[in-house]
Amino acid sequence: MEQIAYLGLGTMGSGMATNLVKAGYPVTVWNRTAEKCNPLVAMGATEASSPAEAAADVNVVMYCLSNDEAVGSVIYSDNGILAGAHSGQIAVDMSTVHPDTSRREAEAYQERGVEFLDAPVFGSKDEAREGGLWVVVGGNEGVFDHMRPVFQALSASVHYMGGTGMGTSMKLVGNLIVAAQMEAVGEALILGKKAGLDLNQVMDVLDVVDFRSPLISGVGRSLVQRDFRTSFALRHMLKDANLIARLAEELRSPIPESAAVRETLKAAVNQGWGEENASALVKALEKQADTML
Amino acid sequence: MEQIAYLGLGTMGSGMATNLVKAGYPVTVWNRTAEKCNPLVAMGATEASSPAEAAADVNVVMYCLSNDEAVGSVIYSDNGILAGAHSGQIAVDMSTVHPDTSRREAEAYQERGVEFLDAPVFGSKDEAREGGLWVVVGGNEGVFDHMRPVFQALSASVHYMGGTGMGTSMKLVGNLIVAAQMEAVGEALILGKKAGLDLNQVMDVLDVVDFRSPLISGVGRSLVQRDFRTSFALRHMLKDANLIARLAEELRSPIPESAAVRETLKAAVNQGWGEENASALVKALEKQADTML
Amino acid sequence: MEQIAYLGLGTMGSGMATNLVKAGYPVTVWNRTAEKCNPLVAMGATEASSPAEAAADVNVVMYCLSNDEAVGSVIYSDNGILAGAHSGQIAVDMSTVHPDTSRREAEAYQERGVEFLDAPVFGSKDEAREGGLWVVVGGNEGVFDHMRPVFQALSASVHYMGGTGMGTSMKLVGNLIVAAQMEAVGEALILGKKAGLDLNQVMDVLDVVDFRSPLISGVGRSLVQRDFRTSFALRHMLKDANLIARLAEELRSPIPESAAVRETLKAAVNQGWGEENASALVKALEKQADTML
Amino acid sequence: MEQIAYLGLGTMGSGMATNLVKAGYPVTVWNRTAEKCNPLVAMGATEASSPAEAAADVNVVMYCLSNDEAVGSVIYSDNGILAGAHSGQIAVDMSTVHPDTSRREAEAYQERGVEFLDAPVFGSKDEAREGGLWVVVGGNEGVFDHMRPVFQALSASVHYMGGTGMGTSMKLVGNLIVAAQMEAVGEALILGKKAGLDLNQVMDVLDVVDFRSPLISGVGRSLVQRDFRTSFALRHMLKDANLIARLAEELRSPIPESAAVRETLKAAVNQGWGEENASALVKALEKQADTML
Repeated sequence: MEQIAYLGLGTMGSGMATNLVKAGYPVTVWNRTAEKCNPLVAMGATEASSPAEAAADVNVVMYCLSNDEAVGSVIYSDNGILAGAHSGQIAVDMSTVHPDTSRREAEAYQERGVEFLDAPVFGSKDEAREGGLWVVVGGNEGVFDHMRPVFQALSASVHYMGGTGMGTSMKLVGNLIVAAQMEAVGEALILGKKAGLDLNQVMDVLDVVDFRSPLISGVGRSLVQRDFRTSFALRHMLKDANLIARLAEELRSPIPESAAVRETLKAAVNQGWGEENASALVKALEKQADTML
Repeated sequence: MEQIAYLGLGTMGSGMATNLVKAGYPVTVWNRTAEKCNPLVAMGATEASSPAEAAADVNVVMYCLSNDEAVGSVIYSDNGILAGAHSGQIAVDMSTVHPDTSRREAEAYQERGVEFLDAPVFGSKDEAREGGLWVVVGGNEGVFDHMRPVFQALSASVHYMGGTGMGTSMKLVGNLIVAAQMEAVGEALILGKKAGLDLNQVMDVLDVVDFRSPLISGVGRSLVQRDFRTSFALRHMLKDANLIARLAEELRSPIPESAAVRETLKAAVNQGWGEENASALVKALEKQADTML
Repeated sequence: MEQIAYLGLGTMGSGMATNLVKAGYPVTVWNRTAEKCNPLVAMGATEASSPAEAAADVNVVMYCLSNDEAVGSVIYSDNGILAGAHSGQIAVDMSTVHPDTSRREAEAYQERGVEFLDAPVFGSKDEAREGGLWVVVGGNEGVFDHMRPVFQALSASVHYMGGTGMGTSMKLVGNLIVAAQMEAVGEALILGKKAGLDLNQVMDVLDVVDFRSPLISGVGRSLVQRDFRTSFALRHMLKDANLIARLAEELRSPIPESAAVRETLKAAVNQGWGEENASALVKALEKQADTML
Repeated sequence: MEQIAYLGLGTMGSGMATNLVKAGYPVTVWNRTAEKCNPLVAMGATEASSPAEAAADVNVVMYCLSNDEAVGSVIYSDNGILAGAHSGQIAVDMSTVHPDTSRREAEAYQERGVEFLDAPVFGSKDEAREGGLWVVVGGNEGVFDHMRPVFQALSASVHYMGGTGMGTSMKLVGNLIVAAQMEAVGEALILGKKAGLDLNQVMDVLDVVDFRSPLISGVGRSLVQRDFRTSFALRHMLKDANLIARLAEELRSPIPESAAVRETLKAAVNQGWGEENASALVKALEKQADTML
């Protein structure tokens, strides 16, 4: 059975690491603020004092970090992964980063004889905790096949998307739709409110029509209840929108809708709601409407 | 059992009228171009030569027309519904029109002692044919209760939304999300294509994640196959986007995302794809991308 | 010399009427709230008690009203212009309205033998007071030539644009650029502020470069000084943006930039700044930026 | 008198270098494709075989390059400026680049004892040739004062904006307005055309109103004449729009209008008009309109 190091125990990482422990894998954990390791250690995980130490004695190093800079720091810094990694290991980046970041990781690992997969996930807090994520993976297909059981321990489904960077590309492509749906629900509910509709009845309709989605139902219901507890933080949604815009810039891909959505996300973060759930983007729309849901 | 007149036998109307006939209702049909009545007549429906004649001897007059102007013409013209309507009847407008149009209809009917419901539907060609639509209804609740069995004959679910205009308001609120999803799928797939992803694999992911929707799966798959056969015509989607913008203007409701989507729809209709499926909006994005899916 | 009735003495109308009086024309004035007539009467104008009375004994009826509805009311109501108008007169609508409104006016007047020009103006409070407006005129060219001296009394230049509706079309085409410039100055100054620039120095540059404009200099300087005294009210700018969107919808003309600007205007009016100067749209951007200029 | 090296002889650079020669400065030139040096050499300039050689024997090294990558290459590559630069010199980057690029340049030069100014220019081909540019400068004010006569030799006015990066920040702030004006003129003229206006008459109005600008008059007239000869290439305008979006992302500054404009620029470059004048963005709008000016 694979010996696994899991680095980065935020909302997503801690859920994933927990499911790996539950599945019986020996897991070494590390987090920048060490206290977050405690619950995992209580379940039997080993705590490492640095990424290098965590990586030293395992077969697989997995990590889920908040952005490209954090990934760079955990890999390349003095006590970073590369300082502990060695030939024959597999590194798996589950963060949502730019595909070029994935490609640079792959190159850096390759020099050490370490295989690399970019394997970001769809789903948020609940799916992470319950092992119901959707994993999208780029890299060598043989390595992917080898890792499949590990991914299955934390997910509802696992998808091989192609070579390095195809996992992160798929994640950005998907999150483009996530952001568009969130803004659409916000615009729709405010319009409905202003038009005189009862928003609970509106949600009863949105739950069943052919454009229903779990996200629309979940976000919409929580908006009506003004529940902004964080499953997926707004500032991360903005970060992803920025990555999408960057990728679309480089590929010269048209994103008129997504460009408009990014501005709402930006406005919502500027107004101080970045740590709330991504659905708090509606608060920026409420300001523009001078109306609350 | 209700005697029903059904006026307007386009894609949606003919499906609905057919399901009423199948459910055993005596149905009188009328359509501006008379040939479209033939299949219904072959199933046992009676053909009327004008809206007035159709309305004369029935309990319920239902109609589904392409826009506000067509509704006005069928109601108020010389041989229009009002020329044949009489006290005690129920008129049901299933078209997607501005809520103010619904309110004007209600007033005109009230003067004749005719009850009125605005009852547009979600779903398109297939749902209409198979009796799987979702009906959203505004008007008097007692009248709605009386009509419920009729609606059930053609739908998967029936939703009472409140007074006159609340059905059409709900329809516009919902179609705001439909349009946003369609554009999002287009932007996402073009970005995915340019990033090097296999679009069939992308759709495999979009089918299962928590922002999956029947619309995204259906539209996405047909885009990948370049199948633009019309379930819901692009020019109707633009018409709805225009109604949404109009309502949002009057209520001063913010719609930055929807405003961007409307421009794509406009561009696609201008380039000649108005009679194709609404998903043909992606062709406008393809032009902007200089890339085909 | 023409006997002139001038109806509507808002910011623009009172300036124009004043310049007609100064030019020596006998002027009859009317305003919905009568007190606004006093300064004109003090200068020698005659006050009428209704549009009909004002129109009764003059050669020319001019009016500048706040929107299409006000125009309709002043023309068609019981004591409206048409109740006093008679063959041989010339009616001149200087309001910013939809070109279709101009066309309906022309038809209504034609039935009475009254000639009609749509003749909205560019410029705001100061230009109106100082006779420095720019008049753009649609209608019969002979009538335009006849009226030219009257227009010259209140303007820096007079432009014949073509048949009925071409004056109002030109006005909307121009105000599309006005709105775009105002938003651009707002976005530019906020970006400059955040980037660390001194905004007075920024304005020194914007005053001289090849994209300088009197509007940019004026609006920019007043933004830096937080001077939002009203020359052209924000709510009127939103009204114009709505007319532009309506015209662009009907002509299926692409306006992605203007559609985005309209949302900012809408947000600014919703937040209560509609009576301030149009440049107060920047306040909506400041909210989105969480930064003040 | 300053000995000046001028690197980068594109449309802008060759105009500026020519004016330096005409002003009597001894000028050494270098360009990646050497033939472009010929006209300058014919006027008396000396040709260098590399940036390092050009920089070796002068007091001042100026350069105007197409983007951040070109700047990096000319400075840092093997025979780059830094390989020839020495203490006491002044380096002046006149390119339009990200302010962070300016800051990195300043640091790199400082290590060699070389002073640095970021000094991009407004104006395009004609102003460069005629010495009518507008220079906006960031860096040490004493160095700026020393360089002022050199800037005056090629410009209509010179503006000190603050510390390093303030020149490039001002350039991006200004070009935000340039791009917004260009799109606005395009949207306005297409709307005018569709509304039935004569576009030459429209331009007669736009030449005189209070939102007139040399850019609007120049671009508008050339659009009406379908003259897309390049003063400022569309692909450079897109590059600048990308820099503006990047800066606004980092500063979280709202740019809803500019974000929409960027999409039009992207679409126009994708469709193959990147080497034409920036005003060719209107061709993307014409596609969306299915109408030609």
